[in-house]
Amino acid sequence: MEKSNIGLIGLGIMGQNLALNLADKGWSVSVWNRPKSGASESVADHFVRVRGKGKSIIACEELEDFAQTLQRPRIVMLMVTAEAVTEVIEKIIPYLDEDDIIIDGGNSNFEDTERRVDELYKRGFYFIGAGISGGEEGALHGASIMPGGAVEAWPVVKPILQSIAAIAEDGTPCCEWVGSGGAGHYVKMVHNGIEYAEMQLIAEVYSLMKQVGNMNNEEMGLIFARWNETDMRSYLIEITSKILRHRDVTGDYVLDKILDVANQKGTGRWSVQNALNLNEPLDMVAEAVFARDLSEKKKLRETLSRTYNRDTNLALYQRDELLAQLFDTLSVSRIVSYAQGFSLMRKASDTYQWNLNYASVALIWREGCILRSELLNSIAKAFLSNSQLENLLAVSSFSEKVKHTLPSWKKIIAMAVKEEITIPALSAALNYFYGITTAHLSANLIQAQRDFFGAHTFERIDEPRGSFFHELWRS
Amino acid sequence: MEKSNIGLIGLGIMGQNLALNLADKGWSVSVWNRPKSGASESVADHFVRVRGKGKSIIACEELEDFAQTLQRPRIVMLMVTAEAVTEVIEKIIPYLDEDDIIIDGGNSNFEDTERRVDELYKRGFYFIGAGISGGEEGALHGASIMPGGAVEAWPVVKPILQSIAAIAEDGTPCCEWVGSGGAGHYVKMVHNGIEYAEMQLIAEVYSLMKQVGNMNNEEMGLIFARWNETDMRSYLIEITSKILRHRDVTGDYVLDKILDVANQKGTGRWSVQNALNLNEPLDMVAEAVFARDLSEKKKLRETLSRTYNRDTNLALYQRDELLAQLFDTLSVSRIVSYAQGFSLMRKASDTYQWNLNYASVALIWREGCILRSELLNSIAKAFLSNSQLENLLAVSSFSEKVKHTLPSWKKIIAMAVKEEITIPALSAALNYFYGITTAHLSANLIQAQRDFFGAHTFERIDEPRGSFFHELWRS
Repeated sequence: MEKSNIGLIGLGIMGQNLALNLADKGWSVSVWNRPKSGASESVADHFVRVRGKGKSIIACEELEDFAQTLQRPRIVMLMVTAEAVTEVIEKIIPYLDEDDIIIDGGNSNFEDTERRVDELYKRGFYFIGAGISGGEEGALHGASIMPGGAVEAWPVVKPILQSIAAIAEDGTPCCEWVGSGGAGHYVKMVHNGIEYAEMQLIAEVYSLMKQVGNMNNEEMGLIFARWNETDMRSYLIEITSKILRHRDVTGDYVLDKILDVANQKGTGRWSVQNALNLNEPLDMVAEAVFARDLSEKKKLRETLSRTYNRDTNLALYQRDELLAQLFDTLSVSRIVSYAQGFSLMRKASDTYQWNLNYASVALIWREGCILRSELLNSIAKAFLSNSQLENLLAVSSFSEKVKHTLPSWKKIIAMAVKEEITIPALSAALNYFYGITTAHLSANLIQAQRDFFGAHTFERIDEPRGSFFHELWRS
Repeated sequence: MEKSNIGLIGLGIMGQNLALNLADKGWSVSVWNRPKSGASESVADHFVRVRGKGKSIIACEELEDFAQTLQRPRIVMLMVTAEAVTEVIEKIIPYLDEDDIIIDGGNSNFEDTERRVDELYKRGFYFIGAGISGGEEGALHGASIMPGGAVEAWPVVKPILQSIAAIAEDGTPCCEWVGSGGAGHYVKMVHNGIEYAEMQLIAEVYSLMKQVGNMNNEEMGLIFARWNETDMRSYLIEITSKILRHRDVTGDYVLDKILDVANQKGTGRWSVQNALNLNEPLDMVAEAVFARDLSEKKKLRETLSRTYNRDTNLALYQRDELLAQLFDTLSVSRIVSYAQGFSLMRKASDTYQWNLNYASVALIWREGCILRSELLNSIAKAFLSNSQLENLLAVSSFSEKVKHTLPSWKKIIAMAVKEEITIPALSAALNYFYGITTAHLSANLIQAQRDFFGAHTFERIDEPRGSFFHELWRS
């Protein structure tokens, strides 16, 4: 019997779709799922009988059989919940041989992946943590795949993973090696963090269009559709234009019926918590996460809205000028958000010694994932011409754009302040830009205060870095 | 031989000062410190011979003797590093009896304290985690003490801990029971988080005074001294006024020689990470922590400052008006910061079931700690009249102040935007205020996007809370 090219464990919707995608690309796949008590037919059998019918997919009842159906070195891909990964690894390992490869394609925390790469290497196996973005559809038709870990296994899995990835406009697959250790899952985490920031930015622009532009859903939808024809083209802009114009059977706009309480699943929070650990400013993501938290206080907001008489009429602004300024503001804020995200990845790579390939990250994100956009082409270009780039704001194409749009940007932020509209992420972008381009900050006062009350010492402008001084402030 | 009232383990500077403070208040104290290799005299002996001379302090060489010198139930206070707490507890426990009390007065993480309270209770001991603020001076002359944990032990330790606490203007000690479990160390963590925000707010005001007010250090120092005579009176305002006017032997202002790179020790970061876990907006602290992180990128800031020609001359503003607006802005931003901090403590208390006493927290912070200020009297009053207050911005005394100062606040933020000065914490305060007083946010769009790309569902305005819906957006 012919052996399968790859084995897949975990037939949730993501696992199923990846298996179908693999089979469609010409790979033979063995699948296994943990037994479901009381079911007359196993999950794997059911899958192969229905969705996998006529495809090169084999259902296995036992893990031992599953392992025996795989060609050597075996490639076992896990599509299970983060909580189940350790258990599944320990279950399959007795049936594996040295140099076999395990890929975790789920949403594991990068620290777990970091540890597993090491531990399994010592036990004779190659472990790859692959961030996979694109949801159910991406899994079926082409995802954005961010593999990292044991680089020795990359040549073996590369043709398989690249075949099921999304294809960028230039024909290259959105799957490249990103780095060692937990790099793959880390990059996916940062992807999701930036996603939080971008969604919040768009929501803030929407609220300004609606409130000071007095625009209706149809008008706003058309504007986002038009923006999507420019260099702002992105998946999130595209779906925003569709959402704004989407009506239910009664003809009402669904968006207007949705409660303004935003939920979250945790990856945005993780990226901020990690940024705090690495001392990297990621405040746009932080503001986006906190904005969702604030939205949950619906009752309090309603009460305080009355306390502060916040239902007043707003000034209206000339629409064309407003829209041009909003376009500039959103464009430049997105650049700042990527500047923060890539700076964080740089710090992580240095800290954890991953040798992260930033250009690959940008290239991978061009298609298949939520962040897919035109902008990622420019970001990729920037890292291709300087792989050690410290901050995107230092790149001339971006700095020209920032300089050009700064007047609009300032006007929009000042307008929101004046009209009393909350714009935490847009504000954070501007303040970060001002801060990171300021040679002399007021942080000297903070150091003085710390030294005053806690003798924490400070560095001096007239002494070399690394020398610390204490002042007797009370004398 | 007379038994000691309390035993103290760990004779670092904080431990020494607390022991002296205890002795000065009439308590007899036994002290022990881990042996130092090679020293001819033990740390405890040295301390009692020199700083503790003539006071009711007994040095013990062995933990067994130490335990035997204490009256029952024993009170053992640990003043050791967070890393050493578990080890010291296990070392002393063999010499303790049922119902003895252990107080951790160090900087332990609240989650460790939470666990220890439970575990030690099961083993027959009472454990108290006490946040202590005020540094060396507070330890010696009166600290701000935040005890929490096994409430059964509170009546026993109360007279001792209150005797060494700072005294508020109304004569009450700045030490009250705050809640069960890890509440004491949690409250100290939030104290430090708010401290980060306040320091950043003052630094931002300083940068505006200096840059658009064109004020010199002497002038700024006098303004802060004057502000300290108003209801803005606080320790941080006071030391800022002193720092600004402090010169070295050559007559130069020390502040101007300090490098604008702000360091940190971690409690600010912890409070933000916990706030993220609890889904509570704490963005002013987050911005303050990230501002310190950003300050560390000194070289990049210098480079980008040139890239963006950021050394331009600024407009100057009429000074009296500017200062009046800055005063209002700082006043109201501090209120917002406490609103965030107390809201976080409320969520923590509900989540961890601590039954936190918010009024006690405010009362404790009035003296002895870094946050000590006039404002805490008003905050304490607010919680004394409504112990279940959800948000400080709902209190009429604060809402009147906010309404009154809002025009100034808006002008200052818009001015900083226009003059290109980074003010992340001041901006976050305003955006939080706008957000928390907005009945209808644009979070409906975020929910729509999440449902579009991930089928994450949403709640509807025309359906009861808790019912979730999915829309077929692509149809």
